[in-house]
Amino acid sequence: MSKITLEQANQVLAETLNKAAEMGLNPLAVSVVDAAGQIVALQRQDGASDLLVKLSRAKAYSCTQFGISSRQLGEIKPSIPEILNSAQILADGNLVAAPGGVLIRDQDGAMIGAIGVSGDTSDNDEACAIAGVEAAGLKV
Amino acid sequence: MSKITLEQANQVLAETLNKAAEMGLNPLAVSVVDAAGQIVALQRQDGASDLLVKLSRAKAYSCTQFGISSRQLGEIKPSIPEILNSAQILADGNLVAAPGGVLIRDQDGAMIGAIGVSGDTSDNDEACAIAGVEAAGLKV
Amino acid sequence: MSKITLEQANQVLAETLNKAAEMGLNPLAVSVVDAAGQIVALQRQDGASDLLVKLSRAKAYSCTQFGISSRQLGEIKPSIPEILNSAQILADGNLVAAPGGVLIRDQDGAMIGAIGVSGDTSDNDEACAIAGVEAAGLKV
Amino acid sequence: MSKITLEQANQVLAETLNKAAEMGLNPLAVSVVDAAGQIVALQRQDGASDLLVKLSRAKAYSCTQFGISSRQLGEIKPSIPEILNSAQILADGNLVAAPGGVLIRDQDGAMIGAIGVSGDTSDNDEACAIAGVEAAGLKV
Repeated sequence: MSKITLEQANQVLAETLNKAAEMGLNPLAVSVVDAAGQIVALQRQDGASDLLVKLSRAKAYSCTQFGISSRQLGEIKPSIPEILNSAQILADGNLVAAPGGVLIRDQDGAMIGAIGVSGDTSDNDEACAIAGVEAAGLKV
Repeated sequence: MSKITLEQANQVLAETLNKAAEMGLNPLAVSVVDAAGQIVALQRQDGASDLLVKLSRAKAYSCTQFGISSRQLGEIKPSIPEILNSAQILADGNLVAAPGGVLIRDQDGAMIGAIGVSGDTSDNDEACAIAGVEAAGLKV
Repeated sequence: MSKITLEQANQVLAETLNKAAEMGLNPLAVSVVDAAGQIVALQRQDGASDLLVKLSRAKAYSCTQFGISSRQLGEIKPSIPEILNSAQILADGNLVAAPGGVLIRDQDGAMIGAIGVSGDTSDNDEACAIAGVEAAGLKV
Repeated sequence: MSKITLEQANQVLAETLNKAAEMGLNPLAVSVVDAAGQIVALQRQDGASDLLVKLSRAKAYSCTQFGISSRQLGEIKPSIPEILNSAQILADGNLVAAPGGVLIRDQDGAMIGAIGVSGDTSDNDEACAIAGVEAAGLKV
């Protein structure tokens, strides 16, 4: 299984924040994790709180553990409530079933990590996450 | 109390993964615990996440503590909500009230352990768990 | 970074237990983790306790986080006591600075995971771990 | 209280990793926190483990809570052993009384944050941390 490099993670992060600036979003926290869900890089913009960092990281982690976006996790939640209730505790609260986390795939479609964005509306968080991944030449 | 042997656990595990391959399921995590709920063997297939391991183990553990399958735990949940809320915390989140965990009984019907499967739909998880136990010459 | 497969992990595990039988060791717990320190497979032999499982897993985890064997971690401990004291807490107690955990490398020398063995003397634990890795065609 | 900006944190991080490359160090984890000890930015180099991230962050955190470098924390430890024993627990293991964490001060000498580096020897970790802060036009 291939794995995101720090260079790729930094590029995704930079592109995501560029997009956020262009969209005029609130201060954001952005986390990039590898395919195992372990942090590779994170940035907290001036004015963003510490809890946003935790949320951004949890969004990214959630994607890697279920192999889907955190928006999709929200969509399937009603069909597996018991699984997700237990998983939430087993993950120490690090599951977020709302938009803002997306998978990062390489050109062959293999999952190499995930990005989580938190600080604006969940839809806006997700929009810049997707834009960031794609601007870095990777896929969601 | 009789107790599942490592040899039996490995056989159940192998048969479960054989069945999963035959059914073409997603990458799975499978855990086998003894009658005390303690892990005997586990395997995580390539591409399955760490959280799936925890869920598979929790499914198996849940069976042993209540003496029923994790599907049945979901069925009785509405009748003992307060007990299960407390038990979930006491078990550190290791209760899963959804299909995928089944008891393992010997030929005399005595509970000797349990198996938990996680990674596909809960119904499919359970189907291969049951098939794995039976193919190993044991009962659910 | 390459990553150990379940097939490789199972082979290492089987070879390790073969060696243990040949050496006539006490009941063992054996854990194989990937390069990120996450569990891939584990087996607890009949008569081995649950805490041995935790120790075997912690030995394997320790190797991956420091990129050395758990024996070597014990050797460098006197030179970095403060780092290891903090790391022990940050790792929730999952560091073991004693023999029994060794890295698993592929033919090119890249770390793909680690194995931890617990149940006999630390030297014997380590001896079968090394024998198991090598018998599976991998390197420590 | 003035506070490090994300732009400054990123610059310190980049300069620290430049210095590490120049020195030929092992893969590092580097964390930058603000004066409150909360994470602003972190990067984990390819090949560095997750536990190194936690250690780097703990080194940076330690500096901000005592207003000294993590090396100095090690030096004063013998004089306040009971305080530090309690503090270690209260800080969930996030105190590291060994080199690798240094304060980040602005041109007026006001503490605006701290950086923690982990992955090579503690002395080397600290050397690049100091070089990184100074190359970014700030003071330790």
